[in-house]
Amino acid sequence: MSPRTGRRAGVSDTRAAIAAAARDEFARSGYDRATIRAIARAAGVDPALVHHYYSTKEKLFVAVMRFPAVPSEVLAQIVAASPDRWGQMIARTIVGIWDDAQGRTTSLALLRSAVSSETAARMLREFVSSAILGRLAEALGVPDAPYRASLVGSQIVGLGMARFVLCLEPLASAGVDDLVAAIAPTLQRYLTGDVRA
Amino acid sequence: MSPRTGRRAGVSDTRAAIAAAARDEFARSGYDRATIRAIARAAGVDPALVHHYYSTKEKLFVAVMRFPAVPSEVLAQIVAASPDRWGQMIARTIVGIWDDAQGRTTSLALLRSAVSSETAARMLREFVSSAILGRLAEALGVPDAPYRASLVGSQIVGLGMARFVLCLEPLASAGVDDLVAAIAPTLQRYLTGDVRA
Repeated sequence: MSPRTGRRAGVSDTRAAIAAAARDEFARSGYDRATIRAIARAAGVDPALVHHYYSTKEKLFVAVMRFPAVPSEVLAQIVAASPDRWGQMIARTIVGIWDDAQGRTTSLALLRSAVSSETAARMLREFVSSAILGRLAEALGVPDAPYRASLVGSQIVGLGMARFVLCLEPLASAGVDDLVAAIAPTLQRYLTGDVRA
Repeated sequence: MSPRTGRRAGVSDTRAAIAAAARDEFARSGYDRATIRAIARAAGVDPALVHHYYSTKEKLFVAVMRFPAVPSEVLAQIVAASPDRWGQMIARTIVGIWDDAQGRTTSLALLRSAVSSETAARMLREFVSSAILGRLAEALGVPDAPYRASLVGSQIVGLGMARFVLCLEPLASAGVDDLVAAIAPTLQRYLTGDVRA
């Protein structure tokens, strides 16, 4: 560290080193196999410091990949409610995140990178599967819950693509309440309705 | 034409010149504003020759952009049926196109190019809106039919993204009949059900 670097710059350098190591490790190993220990080693710091700055692997991923929300925090509220309300709550949450300019920008950047890079697609797939769909499926607690959760994922990704990437009208300009009313029953049926042949 | 170019090569050259001119014109003007006349002019041929080789602007687009089906032909069968069967028929058609390796490959290439290029996104958006969703909306014939059609588009794009780009399991490995059973009621509700706030 250079003599003119004060304590704040030191903290900032360490955080930046951890973030850079985390990006590399998520890209190389995927979300599931990446560990705080390996990231700490690559950054040349103690694992406790990674936990100190970023708390959990999930929050570290959210921070360095600019994921638009912390899934565990959002899902805690949803799974505390009765499952027959989840469709509405998930739809409202997602449409709300995308109604915010920053949430929309970061979501789109992730989606674009996943489409153009298999490495990015793997990171996003593993994170979405583990931190979002897996937890939703676990809370749902039925044998085909993972399939149901992945169906929910398909409509959410499709809404983002149609509204913000392809800009299919009139959906692209539709109001938040209309979108929630359209999508929520779809998500609800995927979660708790009849979805098999 | 050079002396060693026989009749077949001449036809093939002319078709290739028309195809190249069409790609340029669709990219420059979008699908809606591109005309057979402008494409013929750019290719240095008579518009009648473009019609002779490619029949319609829709079929020219399908051919040069490798769109996986001719929408007017697929939709003719669907809109001839009762609207309460469209959800099932559309789901079966789309999942069937994607169950074929070539249909899947061409669909994915279009989706990827639309995500990475605004020019490609505009072409695909205009083609999907005019040649697919617009015709579906017209056949549906209710005031909010365009909104309903764009909701259908969102679930179809999302299914393709989740299954083939993000590869979200177990949806990515699900059988065709299960997928149709899951998606068809969604499309049906978007077309003829209650979708407003």
